[in-house]
Amino acid sequence: MLVRTFVPAHITAFFVPRFHDDPLRAGSLGAGVNLDKGVNVFASIETGTLERHIHVAFNGEPVERKRAIISYSVADELVPDDFIGEVEIWQYFDFPNGHGFGNSAGGALGTALALSYAFGGTWLKAAQVAHRHEVLNRGGLGDVVGQLAGGIEVRVKAGGPGVGVVDNLFFEDYRVLVVPLGRLSTREVLDGDIVDAIEREGREALEKLLLEPGPERMMILAREFAEKTGLLSGELLELARELDKVISTPSSMIMLGRGLFALLREDEVENAITLLSDLNLPYDVTGIHEGRPKVGRWVG
Amino acid sequence: MLVRTFVPAHITAFFVPRFHDDPLRAGSLGAGVNLDKGVNVFASIETGTLERHIHVAFNGEPVERKRAIISYSVADELVPDDFIGEVEIWQYFDFPNGHGFGNSAGGALGTALALSYAFGGTWLKAAQVAHRHEVLNRGGLGDVVGQLAGGIEVRVKAGGPGVGVVDNLFFEDYRVLVVPLGRLSTREVLDGDIVDAIEREGREALEKLLLEPGPERMMILAREFAEKTGLLSGELLELARELDKVISTPSSMIMLGRGLFALLREDEVENAITLLSDLNLPYDVTGIHEGRPKVGRWVG
Repeated sequence: MLVRTFVPAHITAFFVPRFHDDPLRAGSLGAGVNLDKGVNVFASIETGTLERHIHVAFNGEPVERKRAIISYSVADELVPDDFIGEVEIWQYFDFPNGHGFGNSAGGALGTALALSYAFGGTWLKAAQVAHRHEVLNRGGLGDVVGQLAGGIEVRVKAGGPGVGVVDNLFFEDYRVLVVPLGRLSTREVLDGDIVDAIEREGREALEKLLLEPGPERMMILAREFAEKTGLLSGELLELARELDKVISTPSSMIMLGRGLFALLREDEVENAITLLSDLNLPYDVTGIHEGRPKVGRWVG
Repeated sequence: MLVRTFVPAHITAFFVPRFHDDPLRAGSLGAGVNLDKGVNVFASIETGTLERHIHVAFNGEPVERKRAIISYSVADELVPDDFIGEVEIWQYFDFPNGHGFGNSAGGALGTALALSYAFGGTWLKAAQVAHRHEVLNRGGLGDVVGQLAGGIEVRVKAGGPGVGVVDNLFFEDYRVLVVPLGRLSTREVLDGDIVDAIEREGREALEKLLLEPGPERMMILAREFAEKTGLLSGELLELARELDKVISTPSSMIMLGRGLFALLREDEVENAITLLSDLNLPYDVTGIHEGRPKVGRWVG
């Protein structure tokens, strides 16, 4: 049996981390955007072997357990104890790892949904397993619930699936520009002195957004958050300012990666692309993924 | 400005009502199916008049306030107090009112989403307004959260949007057969002696479904619920038994309407249709609506 899932890439615009000993109560407040590119997971389940094997591969290359600890943990939990056979989890990422696109959560959630579909389970339980291993392994706090909500989401109560509450903004046709320039360790940022500023500015951004909800407002608040916390500075801030000259809604920083994103109207795409091409920088332009991740039997 | 929303028809398979003085804490436990037919709402908002007017129409016919109290209440709350102009809410129903398809919730949610889209708001707040007026006017307890979840949903914690928790079952390609034969007053059933049996059997069905989640299991449990509560009896039960002879998963009763529904495999559709045609009964065959209701600007 072959099951395919698609989980959107999730970019956080601003956030407030909420740590908790119970991983289902840990999470984040904040807002973010889901893209129509992300993570495709193919789970192949075959019986007929003499032993139980679980393998994970990233972009076609097998990865050892310690490099994919979250996905292996999800699979260990969701493949029944008495299952004898071969489980292969093939994860394909549209964006690079560690750049703030929610790849680890996408891989975990895609794996959990595919295995729950195959072995019997529900959406909520699958999502809770993915969230728990994300939190325990410090992959992220809010990506799983953000990806489940789809669209442009606002985390109004922190927590995992079934505990946290996620709202959605209404929006019209936007294209999302992403400029992924490098990695940023979520772990290092959250362990650093900056956490106080993140909490203060994140809470303020959320309050302001809920008073006047809308995608453009979200971007303005995201940018304020990025600058006031000091996360967006130096060359990256210079680039954001260059970009803002050719688009109407402020660009902001991908939380957490060394990169930028922006909401573009159709007629702004060309100017933005021209600028980035002239600067010889990597970029992508995608749509917004509305609704849930996709799960289904794959007839390849 | 013209906004269109689509909210799926929602059929409850089994349920446990949960009453509460706070309407956001009132709701139901249970399970149900969302159809790809339902309620289309077109909200037309025009300024330039001297007064503020709100009109609601069902299937093209204007309806007075007392016959559409839920939708009028939603509109009164979501059209800003200082708005001067004409708001017309055109609701079109694919299924008859009062037959258990969640029309009142669909109209309320569609209206709330359309007006929130037009006047500024969010998905969650719109859904909470719809749920609150549904509950206050005793339109229903679980339809709004069921319709928001889409697919085949399981209400695992009762309450309105942001309070209740809704899970989803995985499913493969089913067609949904519906046989709407008449009205049944939710209000009368919930006021009657049968409520104790509904609570007992509904809770048992939910527990059993969560132990072994799946659409076919849900139908078996729905049928047990319908018969054990005494809601399904007499001619309707006879018809369910006739239907079961030509399909593989048990049919059950639409909660709450005088009618039946069933999940069909593609190759079972013809036999079911032949039977119902021979009996000269009304029926429809639809798909399952996955994901959220649809909202967007309408360029007609």
